[in-house]
Amino acid sequence: MTVTGLEVNEDLVNERAKCNFNLEEVTNIIDGGREKTLQRKQIEEIALNNDAYKDTIPEECLSMKERYEKAIKNSCLFTSVVKEKVLEINGMESLGSPVLRHTSEAYFKEISPFLLHLGMFVPTIMGQCTPEQRDYWLPKALDFQIIGAYVQTELGHGTFIRGLETTATYDPETEEFVLHSPTLTSYKWWAGGLGKTANHCVVLAQMSTKGKCYGIHPFIVQIRDLETHMPLPGIKVGELGPRMGYNTADNGFLAFDHHRIPRQHMLMKNAQVEKDGTYVKAARHEKLTYGTMVFVRVTLVHDAAFNLAKAVTIAVRYSAVRRQSQPKPDEPEPQILDYPTQQHKLFIHIATSHALVLTGEWLWRTFTAVLADMKKGNVNNLPELHALSSCLKAVSTSDSALGIEECRYACGGHGYMMSSNLPSIYSYVVATRIYEGDYTVLLLQTARFLVKAWEQAQAGKQLTPTVAYFSQALKNGKETWDGSAESIIKSFQRIAAGKVSACVNNIKEHIKSGMSYEDAWLKTTVQLVAAAEAHCRTLICSVYWEEVTRLTASSSPNVKIVMTQLSMIYLVYWALRMTGDLLRYTSISEKDLDDLQRKYEELLTLIRPNAVGLVDAFDIRDEILRSSLGSYDGRVYERLVEETTRTPLNAEPVNQSFHTYLKPLMQGKL
Amino acid sequence: MTVTGLEVNEDLVNERAKCNFNLEEVTNIIDGGREKTLQRKQIEEIALNNDAYKDTIPEECLSMKERYEKAIKNSCLFTSVVKEKVLEINGMESLGSPVLRHTSEAYFKEISPFLLHLGMFVPTIMGQCTPEQRDYWLPKALDFQIIGAYVQTELGHGTFIRGLETTATYDPETEEFVLHSPTLTSYKWWAGGLGKTANHCVVLAQMSTKGKCYGIHPFIVQIRDLETHMPLPGIKVGELGPRMGYNTADNGFLAFDHHRIPRQHMLMKNAQVEKDGTYVKAARHEKLTYGTMVFVRVTLVHDAAFNLAKAVTIAVRYSAVRRQSQPKPDEPEPQILDYPTQQHKLFIHIATSHALVLTGEWLWRTFTAVLADMKKGNVNNLPELHALSSCLKAVSTSDSALGIEECRYACGGHGYMMSSNLPSIYSYVVATRIYEGDYTVLLLQTARFLVKAWEQAQAGKQLTPTVAYFSQALKNGKETWDGSAESIIKSFQRIAAGKVSACVNNIKEHIKSGMSYEDAWLKTTVQLVAAAEAHCRTLICSVYWEEVTRLTASSSPNVKIVMTQLSMIYLVYWALRMTGDLLRYTSISEKDLDDLQRKYEELLTLIRPNAVGLVDAFDIRDEILRSSLGSYDGRVYERLVEETTRTPLNAEPVNQSFHTYLKPLMQGKL
Repeated sequence: MTVTGLEVNEDLVNERAKCNFNLEEVTNIIDGGREKTLQRKQIEEIALNNDAYKDTIPEECLSMKERYEKAIKNSCLFTSVVKEKVLEINGMESLGSPVLRHTSEAYFKEISPFLLHLGMFVPTIMGQCTPEQRDYWLPKALDFQIIGAYVQTELGHGTFIRGLETTATYDPETEEFVLHSPTLTSYKWWAGGLGKTANHCVVLAQMSTKGKCYGIHPFIVQIRDLETHMPLPGIKVGELGPRMGYNTADNGFLAFDHHRIPRQHMLMKNAQVEKDGTYVKAARHEKLTYGTMVFVRVTLVHDAAFNLAKAVTIAVRYSAVRRQSQPKPDEPEPQILDYPTQQHKLFIHIATSHALVLTGEWLWRTFTAVLADMKKGNVNNLPELHALSSCLKAVSTSDSALGIEECRYACGGHGYMMSSNLPSIYSYVVATRIYEGDYTVLLLQTARFLVKAWEQAQAGKQLTPTVAYFSQALKNGKETWDGSAESIIKSFQRIAAGKVSACVNNIKEHIKSGMSYEDAWLKTTVQLVAAAEAHCRTLICSVYWEEVTRLTASSSPNVKIVMTQLSMIYLVYWALRMTGDLLRYTSISEKDLDDLQRKYEELLTLIRPNAVGLVDAFDIRDEILRSSLGSYDGRVYERLVEETTRTPLNAEPVNQSFHTYLKPLMQGKL
Repeated sequence: MTVTGLEVNEDLVNERAKCNFNLEEVTNIIDGGREKTLQRKQIEEIALNNDAYKDTIPEECLSMKERYEKAIKNSCLFTSVVKEKVLEINGMESLGSPVLRHTSEAYFKEISPFLLHLGMFVPTIMGQCTPEQRDYWLPKALDFQIIGAYVQTELGHGTFIRGLETTATYDPETEEFVLHSPTLTSYKWWAGGLGKTANHCVVLAQMSTKGKCYGIHPFIVQIRDLETHMPLPGIKVGELGPRMGYNTADNGFLAFDHHRIPRQHMLMKNAQVEKDGTYVKAARHEKLTYGTMVFVRVTLVHDAAFNLAKAVTIAVRYSAVRRQSQPKPDEPEPQILDYPTQQHKLFIHIATSHALVLTGEWLWRTFTAVLADMKKGNVNNLPELHALSSCLKAVSTSDSALGIEECRYACGGHGYMMSSNLPSIYSYVVATRIYEGDYTVLLLQTARFLVKAWEQAQAGKQLTPTVAYFSQALKNGKETWDGSAESIIKSFQRIAAGKVSACVNNIKEHIKSGMSYEDAWLKTTVQLVAAAEAHCRTLICSVYWEEVTRLTASSSPNVKIVMTQLSMIYLVYWALRMTGDLLRYTSISEKDLDDLQRKYEELLTLIRPNAVGLVDAFDIRDEILRSSLGSYDGRVYERLVEETTRTPLNAEPVNQSFHTYLKPLMQGKL
């Protein structure tokens, strides 16, 4: 953006004057505390206060090859900034923080080819190596002497990891593993940074030794020459071709033709193959590898929240600037933010972003507690953690994607411009809905846990905290409705329990009629997914409500009020989406439903004056937001017009195709 | 696609062997009769049986400028084919048929810069000119001696046409109109083909003569020199920059600096400005201009159906080929189409596509009947037609967009590849959800009609056919539920009437408490949108059900069965989405709800064996489908791998950025 000047759109000036709460307090809550806000701002200062990374031509005008080249350039620029300044000041742990990744979005409209080097390659080296291996590889990777990718998914298998086909067969004669891709579907597929950039990668393969297959194990494999960057013999590697997003991340394929690597390149923390081919498995390894998985899922919940925050920031600011229609004769056109239908489209997403960020934080705390337990040998809470992280990843990415599209629709035609950034934000988030576990598959994993928990509840056993409400549901009939937040949350719990119970009965009936358990389960999966969704929604609602209460305990009064309004609108919104379930599982009356609708509309009106303040409190810098519609100054139309001067098609008044095609056509000479 | 050979994936061969109904009969029903199918196939033969238009490099790998140039080339190619062969054989009316546009999708992954020349410029000349004007402009336009755009929307105003700011002021001294763009927000914005291609356009502007403004009128304006293609003096014109889709359509902007055009260039069928500046308005013009609008909306309903058909064709074929997971130990991985959750994601969209295409046809027939009435002077049914076309446009484009994304999700990661074509299909349809009237605005127009109709019903007046059910609802209390199709439709009617009634009461209460009607209306808009949606759903359900009954009356038994299963699953699906409303407005019991869920799952099982047959019956040629995942032969993995050979990034093993950036970074020399 090169629109300069300090002028701010007058409507936005007025909105900001109207806002009645302290923005900084809310920003601190979202960032996870005042310290975190300060650290974020410091990193942003370091990374963003230069012009070297900024676009001259809109990225989407370039060819895919040019876009890749620009991404490499900017990745190197960003890496220098990080290596030289960020790590120095904020230490290694800032590497894994979402702040650094979010800041890097100023450098990359899509994704850096280095994303998985730091995001997966380095963590895998940290987590899966023996100390010797780690000492050998980690310094090289952290110093970018080698650049890595994480290579797991294949053309024919994604979420179902056991189905992977790539083989790694140990040859004791030469003390080597032979990596091979036996089929077309065994081509490694999708890995970011693999196509053109990485020279090493972690490869997951079916490991066999002494004629026996021991399942999936990780290997570190050099794939390109460090001097020439040419693929090594036995390696077929390349880019996948255009994607809906991530086009600068050179997602790639990789196939092996009996490619040999030293025995020591198997990552041996959790299992070893000895010189003679003897397989030795470490104890308790499966449990501890949950660490990376949960970490990645928490990251995705945070990303979902952050990207939804970007979208709703853009849409709310635009809605304050845009004026349209004339509902009353002789009055000026209102800001579209004044229309209840527009408020209905937008305010829920401010709340959802808060809900997801607070739930993500809570999930991380839960995880660290479980991890501490595990180190003491107590693994009782592990299945619950797995169920939690599965459904939260699924629902948060799905909610965020739907919300981003609603925000884009709320911006009308201009939301369709790439310069709004809304289409790119969407294409980023929909990918996170798919990778690291498909939506449906993850919810069914949660459902598996819920069904077991329900059976335990029926057997009168003690339940882990997030399903403790099952015991209550077993005792009560319909939940008593009084419309309070607590009552809504209890009603949601009653609904989720009711759905799980219906699934359990369904499975039983099918079995009674002669089906196997597997078939009965399959037959029930549509309802099991719905039950897991209901459980997850219940969870988000209760965590969000409790966290707001806790985190605003010492806030100034108006912060407390607006944060409570937001969490309340979240509860009421979802209650109104579930009227059928409420009527079935609670005492809610028709009049209560009408009251609920009225309450929802009142909350829209109450939130309205603070709407711009609330998105300002996300505190997303213009460089990161990258939106002609959403910039802080609200100079929407000026920016849209300025964008047209940057597109190469406008650099010449007449495109060559006029002479070669159009004119001959017009003159009947084609 | 250059994958050759006649080999078809074995799973698809088996699926096709399993299909128990006559495909051609279903194809004919969707096409609108056997004749129409034959005509379509003839046009496809003419247009597609050459290689000149086919891609060598995936379109998304090119720069935006290269993509535009390719689109111009292919537009000219397609135009020659159409001019020389299609019109000759099928006559002028084939120009306006969806078939020609759908066939052209083989030539354009996004959109042709000529789309609005034929789609809006020519029809406007036909509809808004005096006979003399028509004789002058039409032959030039049809022969492509001039290429036109339709220029209405401005930077600051879209759906609210009255707000347009561009002025056309008559100067009797020179007998000219002076076109001017008085503000930044008055820049014309969005028009397809305007940015680089068109040399003429129809411009909508606020027309003033003798010091008085008469509102929006159409003008024909030359904007570029026919010899040099340079913009004329007083004209500022260019491309908008990258968009989510339509990137090859050179959507453009246009601003006038006191640009003068002859008086005769106002399109004067409906209003004239005489030499001296006297304004003369034709009688009854407003009513007849509905024609183009309804025509465009029917087209959009058809497009929504067709694009959803493409998406579900891709997803169902892919789901028959893809095998994943192992629900039962020791058994092979099942086709994912065998999972009930996958069937739940997909089958509804086969039904929705049918529902929309049949409703679109029905809307067109309704329109022609109303038009015939109007020519006899009866305009009573016009408000109903307007309400119908508004909500059907809104709901069909919205349903289709959501459905396409569900189909894409159902294809997992591979749906994210541009070569699947699913992302492009989506970005096309989401635009149709916005243009030609925003979703919310259109539904509120329908709501306006519904509220009036409800008040008429209360006054005991006779209602027009699509709201006749209001009278019934006024008499009955809860609708009696028996689970049949008729009962579901009647229940939906009861629900829609209930929602409209609640809105009317709400408005009254607000007025009683002192609000103006306008404010009371605004306060109720969230519920009014929901009421209009419910009315529209009711309408689609009843039209779909009746049309299937009518159109399969003489079909072979299995066609009748499968078409009925599809329309039934559509009803049951929506009933399950509205359980709250059913519990409020009908006698449905909890057991009935459980039965409904069971019925839904049974229908999934019944449709399963015919699923591939049903998408085959859409009969969409591979050239038009353009999908690596959805081709008729099902060679999914082979095509995905072949695609990687076409991307320029893979043409060289080492990208130059290795030498300029990566290697220096790795060696610490950057």
